[in-house]
Amino acid sequence: MSSTIFIQTPFQFKSLNKSLNTHFVPSFKLPVSLSFKPRTAAFSKRVHIRAGLIEPDGGKLVDLHVSEPERELKKREAASLPKVKLTPIDVQWVHVLSEGWASPLTGFMRESEFLQTLHFNSLRLDGGSFVNMSVPIILAIDDLQKASIGESDRVALLDSDDKLIAILTDIEIYKHPKEERIARTWGTTAPGLPYVEETITNAGNWLIGGDLEVIAPIKYNDGLDRFRLSPVELRKEFERRNADAVFAFQLRNPVHNGHALLMTDTHRRLLEMGYKNPVLLLHPLGGYTKADDVPLSWRMKQHEKVLEDGVLDPETTVVSIFPSPMHYAGPTEVQWHAKARINAGANFYIVGRDPAGMGHPVEKRDLYDADHGKKVLSMAPGLERLNILPFRVAAYDKTQGKMAFFDPSRAQDFLFISGTKMRTLAKNKENPPPGFMCPGGWEVLVEYYASLTPSDNDRIPQPVAA
Amino acid sequence: MSSTIFIQTPFQFKSLNKSLNTHFVPSFKLPVSLSFKPRTAAFSKRVHIRAGLIEPDGGKLVDLHVSEPERELKKREAASLPKVKLTPIDVQWVHVLSEGWASPLTGFMRESEFLQTLHFNSLRLDGGSFVNMSVPIILAIDDLQKASIGESDRVALLDSDDKLIAILTDIEIYKHPKEERIARTWGTTAPGLPYVEETITNAGNWLIGGDLEVIAPIKYNDGLDRFRLSPVELRKEFERRNADAVFAFQLRNPVHNGHALLMTDTHRRLLEMGYKNPVLLLHPLGGYTKADDVPLSWRMKQHEKVLEDGVLDPETTVVSIFPSPMHYAGPTEVQWHAKARINAGANFYIVGRDPAGMGHPVEKRDLYDADHGKKVLSMAPGLERLNILPFRVAAYDKTQGKMAFFDPSRAQDFLFISGTKMRTLAKNKENPPPGFMCPGGWEVLVEYYASLTPSDNDRIPQPVAA
Repeated sequence: MSSTIFIQTPFQFKSLNKSLNTHFVPSFKLPVSLSFKPRTAAFSKRVHIRAGLIEPDGGKLVDLHVSEPERELKKREAASLPKVKLTPIDVQWVHVLSEGWASPLTGFMRESEFLQTLHFNSLRLDGGSFVNMSVPIILAIDDLQKASIGESDRVALLDSDDKLIAILTDIEIYKHPKEERIARTWGTTAPGLPYVEETITNAGNWLIGGDLEVIAPIKYNDGLDRFRLSPVELRKEFERRNADAVFAFQLRNPVHNGHALLMTDTHRRLLEMGYKNPVLLLHPLGGYTKADDVPLSWRMKQHEKVLEDGVLDPETTVVSIFPSPMHYAGPTEVQWHAKARINAGANFYIVGRDPAGMGHPVEKRDLYDADHGKKVLSMAPGLERLNILPFRVAAYDKTQGKMAFFDPSRAQDFLFISGTKMRTLAKNKENPPPGFMCPGGWEVLVEYYASLTPSDNDRIPQPVAA
Repeated sequence: MSSTIFIQTPFQFKSLNKSLNTHFVPSFKLPVSLSFKPRTAAFSKRVHIRAGLIEPDGGKLVDLHVSEPERELKKREAASLPKVKLTPIDVQWVHVLSEGWASPLTGFMRESEFLQTLHFNSLRLDGGSFVNMSVPIILAIDDLQKASIGESDRVALLDSDDKLIAILTDIEIYKHPKEERIARTWGTTAPGLPYVEETITNAGNWLIGGDLEVIAPIKYNDGLDRFRLSPVELRKEFERRNADAVFAFQLRNPVHNGHALLMTDTHRRLLEMGYKNPVLLLHPLGGYTKADDVPLSWRMKQHEKVLEDGVLDPETTVVSIFPSPMHYAGPTEVQWHAKARINAGANFYIVGRDPAGMGHPVEKRDLYDADHGKKVLSMAPGLERLNILPFRVAAYDKTQGKMAFFDPSRAQDFLFISGTKMRTLAKNKENPPPGFMCPGGWEVLVEYYASLTPSDNDRIPQPVAA
């Protein structure tokens, strides 16, 4: 996928800039308690609904940008510091950290945070409470870079064009236990995990942690930056819309009508629960994805069509890009996806079958149990404040000619259309059953696969550029 | 190692039955706060010392034995239930569970506990607090056993001689994700992990959780049962001795004078902190160990000599056997070792270099970073009440001719005697440097290796029988 595609096909989203003409709804608290308790009574937990925007983790959104007046000073300082070169995925993590998605983290993890993440999927705060933190956000360096840093307590971080991105201060260098990191994060060490092959296998044997001073907001200049709202900006948008509940939907695939059903059904359920103005955060992941996923630019075009076609209501939907890279680490990663959305103001999180999962890279099976994601999410330390909304499975109901919640009592009426099936249909320019996806959205998919050269279609296309 | 060795060489420990002639020391609380906080200030924790016996996890020690009057009734009930055969290591876990070492667990884990253990090393209690639980305590069954259980909600658990051990009630059968379990528990999936090869590789693809009703206390009839004090019995013993601090020392190796130095030094430090009557729980692990570890019976003989020779003070030392099997899972397992000792009344835990570690089964390096164990332990959820006492490293000081705390400023004066080195010396009937281990203890080791047939010495001896 070349990034020129973005420029050739500019488009506008209307949902974000349209103002919402609802009357002011004062914030209120509901005495409703939703329980998603695990089967075992002795270790159950209860989730309580609280209206209004949820507090960020640690009580305060982290902002790691240097102020504009300081910028030149920092640039001059950086010139004399040891340099560390960042990969595009490293830069995506700087982006994530800089805007506070990982609040209260203030930079790449030091060893204490790294170990807590690996072993406990959570970080203990002063005072003894926990925030969730399930994937390591770390920066690897090699022996040469370590030697070049010497005794310096700070380093300058440059992108692949040698542009200064940030200064990392009060640094700590410690060992990068790759095998252990992979095993504890993915629950396997089988070869062929996309994020591992892309970022870990050839990475250095050291990690460098510290506090970030980010010189300027990270931009990608791909025509999509205006959709990359920070947690602060999202919170402002939700407040502007007087949202009294925000429900987040993480996705990295085209939206079909099964997803849409689920989102509109969630909206309905929240109204029934007494919320006056629930807002959907439709939040496609914008960082690194594996080669056979549909690239971000095409997904955004597809999402646009879905809103245009009226499948989702633009009045109650905010579409924005989540800047994180994708791990494909199933139950471990879904916690990160949920936790980051707390920081963006979401207090409801929709979770489906096998979130952040994929096929086992070596064996003929899914890597994760399809139900573990939602179970682990409902039990995760630090996510107690978030209301987890497990999916009901949607499938194509042949009797109605549309996507509907699967009814096991008449299983023969339903058709499950897998990602592979969807991909094959679109590649072959065939149509899915009517009602599976809005026609405009489907056309985008067909156009995407047609845009690939035959060799792209044989081998894997390149991951979308950052 | 044949179990007849136990019978051929009976011995008596004096420490346990000797009464302690101290005056009564009332329980008191110290306003002392010891902080072992990780380097990163934002995620630090503080540990507070509280005198007196620590509360068990969950507030109450679990006891899973059926009362004697019920016993016959339960046996009759069991006769009509589906049967599951236990391995000797399964029986060791029944023992562990039955006496409340894993309080508040009431039986083999159901999926909710299993997932929390794998992902968070802790279990959430009603009310939202956490107890630590880092190793899965689970029972595997195969497809045939699963089929034979059918719809029954309870099963009878039999040992390898078909003797009824327990009834498992309110059962839940779920998938045994072996690869994921291994990766998340050990941080590697490399072949050759002893516990994995012994208990997981050939185990069934299902796990069965439920509440245990244990017919009678587990006995091994190996001459050592009198040293297998339950948490209840240990707590009584500590109370009888008027302990106002209990410090636990987990071990699975012969005690040398470096260990002894550490334990006596800890005793001294606790007195300095204001405790009047600190008691040492010298607590060798008694369950499954790998083939090249010294078997329990010989270790117990060696520990006896150490007490006889006056290296440790029997007046302030309780020697008892910890019935758990050994995982060799480093930072994950050391949490279990510590947590179980809370339940036995210990409020101080001594942790050294690379606890529960071993060599990587495939690569030429230690499996775990030698410092990760104590770091992870000091940050582990649910262990906040336990005071972690990290080892100072002891080594043989050639200038003093004894074990002493290593002084890096005169490193050349010290000799590190590894386990392999110790083993080689004992096998060759050579002596270690004087002052490394008391002569009586060393003789036991030499005798042990001499007792092995040449073929035992070549290949691996069998693990000690349960």
